[in-house]
Amino acid sequence: MTGIDIPVPAAGAGTTRIDDLPVREELRGKSPYGAPQLDVPVRLNTNENPYPLPEPLVERIAERVREVARNLNRYPDRDAVELRTALADYLNATGPDSAPELGAAHVWAANGSNEVIQQLLQTFGGPGRTALGFEPSYSMHSLIARGTGTAWVSGPRADDFTLDPETAVRAIAEHRPDVVFVTTPNNPTGNAVPAETVLALYEAAQRAKPSMVIVDEAYVEFSHGTSLLPLLAGRPHLVLSRTMSKAFGAAGLRLGYLAADPAVVDAVQLVRLPYHLSAVTQATALAALEHTDTLLKYVEQLKAERDRLVAELRTIGYEVTESDANFVQFGRFPEPGGARAAWRQILTRGVLVRDNGVPGWLRVSAGTPQENDAFLDAVRDLKKEQEQHG
Amino acid sequence: MTGIDIPVPAAGAGTTRIDDLPVREELRGKSPYGAPQLDVPVRLNTNENPYPLPEPLVERIAERVREVARNLNRYPDRDAVELRTALADYLNATGPDSAPELGAAHVWAANGSNEVIQQLLQTFGGPGRTALGFEPSYSMHSLIARGTGTAWVSGPRADDFTLDPETAVRAIAEHRPDVVFVTTPNNPTGNAVPAETVLALYEAAQRAKPSMVIVDEAYVEFSHGTSLLPLLAGRPHLVLSRTMSKAFGAAGLRLGYLAADPAVVDAVQLVRLPYHLSAVTQATALAALEHTDTLLKYVEQLKAERDRLVAELRTIGYEVTESDANFVQFGRFPEPGGARAAWRQILTRGVLVRDNGVPGWLRVSAGTPQENDAFLDAVRDLKKEQEQHG
Repeated sequence: MTGIDIPVPAAGAGTTRIDDLPVREELRGKSPYGAPQLDVPVRLNTNENPYPLPEPLVERIAERVREVARNLNRYPDRDAVELRTALADYLNATGPDSAPELGAAHVWAANGSNEVIQQLLQTFGGPGRTALGFEPSYSMHSLIARGTGTAWVSGPRADDFTLDPETAVRAIAEHRPDVVFVTTPNNPTGNAVPAETVLALYEAAQRAKPSMVIVDEAYVEFSHGTSLLPLLAGRPHLVLSRTMSKAFGAAGLRLGYLAADPAVVDAVQLVRLPYHLSAVTQATALAALEHTDTLLKYVEQLKAERDRLVAELRTIGYEVTESDANFVQFGRFPEPGGARAAWRQILTRGVLVRDNGVPGWLRVSAGTPQENDAFLDAVRDLKKEQEQHG
Repeated sequence: MTGIDIPVPAAGAGTTRIDDLPVREELRGKSPYGAPQLDVPVRLNTNENPYPLPEPLVERIAERVREVARNLNRYPDRDAVELRTALADYLNATGPDSAPELGAAHVWAANGSNEVIQQLLQTFGGPGRTALGFEPSYSMHSLIARGTGTAWVSGPRADDFTLDPETAVRAIAEHRPDVVFVTTPNNPTGNAVPAETVLALYEAAQRAKPSMVIVDEAYVEFSHGTSLLPLLAGRPHLVLSRTMSKAFGAAGLRLGYLAADPAVVDAVQLVRLPYHLSAVTQATALAALEHTDTLLKYVEQLKAERDRLVAELRTIGYEVTESDANFVQFGRFPEPGGARAAWRQILTRGVLVRDNGVPGWLRVSAGTPQENDAFLDAVRDLKKEQEQHG
């Protein structure tokens, strides 16, 4: 400032609101995305893995981070080659035998699958282009479309939340989207999309434009079936999106990745922010990948608990959507207002579930056996009350 | 896959190129941004801080990361409140006395200042809107504008790379941009913009639209002057962008942040990807902020070395742009081709500097005294050769 007088305008700080700023018109009146972060004994609302990382992995993370911390003054490996190689190895080891062998060239990583999807939409969507997803589904798809200037079309689902191939193919032919999202297992409904249906959608998308098909497999490790990795062979417009948040119990790490034709990996590098993935993120992810076997044992436990939740909820008298994820959609609650009221009543019993805005339905994440027992007790009480007042 | 036959199309994988994909038209033929990462003894090309983190800080990072690693199964604090508070404390402690007292409400953090700028352009720029920056400057400003669909206007600089307030104000009045970038100290030229000029640009931007003014202060800790934080009082359309990459020696951490009116912080949350900042990033940044005093001592050493580079380069016979950053722009080399040829000749002596594409000029980062000696020896040789052949 070297001595100059800086005039301070009369209006004090802190009195300005968002709408006083020149924000984009479409943002006016909007609220930030995000589930309520409430301090409740049992949190089953964000599909987190309930198991803290095992102590040997915690030590390995500290060790790996210590190694990179010394040279934190240098930019990280911009291309994250070691990490992408390790992710490819993981996909090769856990994918179906019929899947093509993948290497670093087929894999790209970013800060959460949200950033992966943002980069894909910056590359293949954007102003003047359209993305289509079958809703209800992961709501960040449409939000990131909005954030990247991509028009959004909501595709149809059947009443039981499955995708009817014929109807879905017709929607693609009609809207000719540049990007098609298929979430399998789907969030928040939990059901998987058969490989035949994904194939039909891919073919329809090629006839219509051709367009990119992004298959969001965030929850695939919890599926009764297997990954759609085998579909990648010879389909350069197909992208599988994955994450370490769920199966690796690493939501706090923010590590999403994709598998696709190497040309897709080359293309997203035209829009990625340089050095987007920090050295500590890369080191932590590499440590977690060393402990894959242990972490996948937790996945088996969670699959068993998920199946138990489905069975018990049905026994209690709820409708349940088939689930291949680490969460379960249950209902139906009388609308309007029934799901919201049930959400609140479950919360008063110390259990936080998710109201995703699907009329008549709520979503519960599979927690530890104890957490799931607490949830089941709560919804058992709720059912009794409803029957008494019904 | 449960037994279905997946047809594999005839075309093999790996034969597809970017241009075979339906990428956005404006991306065709483009290359990813980034300096060459060459394996050379002396790397003075990316304005990294040359000092590895001190051992006590390395230990503290490992400790803090170990603490959060256990609960990495949970999503991180979406709002990063502890970190934003610590960053506000840092700004309060190091900013001019006349700066307003800041709290977490005035500060927002993201994965590098690149992501901060991307969020700002998604909020205040985007399709149908225009950003203006005075070039040559940090080239990511225009690249992120392109990535967010924001039109870009290149504003004028004088031949000595300073900003002439009258010319700059006229450019704002003419183009009526929605976002104005002012980089001070400027990258790659090194010179600072006086506070009076920034004020004049802010006023011009308000008369023209009103529009947001983003002051990129990535290198301000190395300045002979002080931060423009005092300008924030009563100016809700002003944003200061900062980073931990340079002064904190933490380029590998990817931690950028901004200081602004709380309404700006509220607004960027409408476009930020939820949970964008990992728990390990937050923990590592908090550890580094605990060691501010030590890290700022390195800054003092680098400032002295930067001043030495300026003086020695002039003694050798080069032109040098005034520098308030941790790098120095030197020349002039005869164009066309002179800067590129000099870059190559310096490289053959084991020293990597940066050719930012400013005709006639190269940029060298201030390294350790030994690295700077190696650089000075190289350019001394180069000068002699040029004189022999001139």
